[in-house]
Amino acid sequence: MKNIVILGSTGSIGTQTLDVVRKSKEFQVIGLTCYNNIDLIKQQIDEFNPKFVAVKDKSSAKKLKEMVDTNTVILSGDDGINEVASLSNVQTVVVAIEGIAALIPTIKAIETGHDIALANKECLVTGGHIIKKLAIEKNINIFPVDSEHNAIYQCIQSGKKEFVNKLIITASGGPFRGKTLNDLKSVTVEEALNHPNWKMGKKITIDSATLMNKGFEVIEANWLFDMPLEKIEVVVHKESIIHSMVEFIDGSIIAEMATADMRIPIQYALNFPNRVYVEGVRYLDIAKIASLSFEKPDVNTFRCLQLAYDALREGGTMTTVLNTADEVAVQLFLERAISFNDIPCIIEKYMNSHKNIINPELNDIIEVDKEIREKIKREYMR
Amino acid sequence: MKNIVILGSTGSIGTQTLDVVRKSKEFQVIGLTCYNNIDLIKQQIDEFNPKFVAVKDKSSAKKLKEMVDTNTVILSGDDGINEVASLSNVQTVVVAIEGIAALIPTIKAIETGHDIALANKECLVTGGHIIKKLAIEKNINIFPVDSEHNAIYQCIQSGKKEFVNKLIITASGGPFRGKTLNDLKSVTVEEALNHPNWKMGKKITIDSATLMNKGFEVIEANWLFDMPLEKIEVVVHKESIIHSMVEFIDGSIIAEMATADMRIPIQYALNFPNRVYVEGVRYLDIAKIASLSFEKPDVNTFRCLQLAYDALREGGTMTTVLNTADEVAVQLFLERAISFNDIPCIIEKYMNSHKNIINPELNDIIEVDKEIREKIKREYMR
Repeated sequence: MKNIVILGSTGSIGTQTLDVVRKSKEFQVIGLTCYNNIDLIKQQIDEFNPKFVAVKDKSSAKKLKEMVDTNTVILSGDDGINEVASLSNVQTVVVAIEGIAALIPTIKAIETGHDIALANKECLVTGGHIIKKLAIEKNINIFPVDSEHNAIYQCIQSGKKEFVNKLIITASGGPFRGKTLNDLKSVTVEEALNHPNWKMGKKITIDSATLMNKGFEVIEANWLFDMPLEKIEVVVHKESIIHSMVEFIDGSIIAEMATADMRIPIQYALNFPNRVYVEGVRYLDIAKIASLSFEKPDVNTFRCLQLAYDALREGGTMTTVLNTADEVAVQLFLERAISFNDIPCIIEKYMNSHKNIINPELNDIIEVDKEIREKIKREYMR
Repeated sequence: MKNIVILGSTGSIGTQTLDVVRKSKEFQVIGLTCYNNIDLIKQQIDEFNPKFVAVKDKSSAKKLKEMVDTNTVILSGDDGINEVASLSNVQTVVVAIEGIAALIPTIKAIETGHDIALANKECLVTGGHIIKKLAIEKNINIFPVDSEHNAIYQCIQSGKKEFVNKLIITASGGPFRGKTLNDLKSVTVEEALNHPNWKMGKKITIDSATLMNKGFEVIEANWLFDMPLEKIEVVVHKESIIHSMVEFIDGSIIAEMATADMRIPIQYALNFPNRVYVEGVRYLDIAKIASLSFEKPDVNTFRCLQLAYDALREGGTMTTVLNTADEVAVQLFLERAISFNDIPCIIEKYMNSHKNIINPELNDIIEVDKEIREKIKREYMR
């Protein structure tokens, strides 16, 4: 029996993690957290009987306390979430919180000595150097849940790390693959949310449409696998069947393929080095795949990907600017305050005017995030 | 420095192995053998200075002795080859002899305790149970050189063996992919030798055209990876870029891709667990691959594949009948004595009339091989 904590249990990855737990007899859920979805977390408490639950929104936490009649301890606010992240007697903390809000709880979990199943991008995008250093110090594993990094994690097992030549991250290309900058001028929120292959949250779906999601993945791969920028390649693979690849120095490329079901990487992250079949997961029928295709990404049209490479090259707090400006810009787009093509323009503008802090402390990151967030909101919010 | 022996150094795999050795500083060639190509082996002696060379054809061996003025000891006949196979102070014996002739030298090499880099199919097709048992007893490794099994060997490193769900062997489909039985009635030797993706010896090229080559690979995979028949699938993949795959129980498929260059699997077999870049090997440019396609093999038209599955299911000496009947039938086809579609008919006929010996000794295999060879020759040779 493995004790786990899920930070962000009411989101897409959180609920799928609980589905993996539900269908396995290997895990005991010790703690859960959410932002304010108390109806759903109430059901999760009833089913999984965690010892601790933290709700970020304090008034929601109060309401939840009145709804719960089990022994589950209900905590609230950032302190509550950090407490759940650092519970003792836990093997793995699943980080499924969206956004930079995951950064501090993840650091707390690592400091406590827990392995991390990481579904959040912002932790490594903004604080990769801190997380990586701490993970080495505490000798814990970071198992990526993201299908691309999970694929790379699997492929890299096939050879010693010293023989890796490059990582090849596949990109579906999103709903606008093949479009020109001009085509994208007038795309609607609905069109951008219509991802061809994956059902995901809104923020990440828009990031997939702009290719910023792929840009974040390049930055994450840099930290997760300790690979320099120039050894991380993005290839557009519209079928999303190959989830990523590793090229070794001898010319062999090892690739991982699976159906688009996040429960596969989730169970892998929870069970490594073992593998478990999760009931309901479909196997790929290779002979029924008509064809797999590949092309170079168009970084002129999808400028967010180029901006991510630029930010990674700069390092420091530049990746935080990238991340925060993107988050706010996507929010503005979803609120129909800006157009789709404004997203990279806003990010680039704030990157250009940012005075980079190299090797930033956690506080620097949080300050830069706050500052950029406020600046953009001030400028663009109606 | 690793001491190696190459059995069959003048053939396609033998010369490519020497190219890998030439471009590396890791290997010392201790022994070489050939059938009768003394001009080429003379050059190899001059370049690699092996201690021992064996020539199967005794009169050729005699001629070679007169040509060689180094300290290299020239041996001859089966005894000479077996002696080179069992030299002491050798780490790896590369078995690149074609046909069942490789069986006894391979057994000798394993008995001596050498690791095997296996490029020969017949050893495992006819004597898999003997080779496998001996390899376990002697605690030696069999590294497959064949691109498909080498790919599986690489992919299987990605997870524990107990979590393998199935092996997926890819087949180019050969020059006649998509043809009907009727189309194949009148194909010429030249058409059958025109393989779309790989440059290989004549026998294996015809076996690729009939899909018997894939059938042999299924039998080999059964022994190499200890996987039952029903967990070994063949998928036609005409581009020959994915060399084979492993499906794990969690639904992840790990695939290996590379350019069609046998020096990649050869160096892997020689260097495992390390990987070495061999000068001249081209890397795959994934973004330039227009597309990869997959389809089920047509076992009605390419009946040899079905016959191989049938022979493996029967076991015993039935796989020897399959192998020998195919070898002679291919020879007859190359001599234009029979038609392309006669190949499976002849094999099936001899399989049907064979009284199977279960768990055969080495002598039984050699006897059955001799008997079938003579019978078919008597019936078909002009």
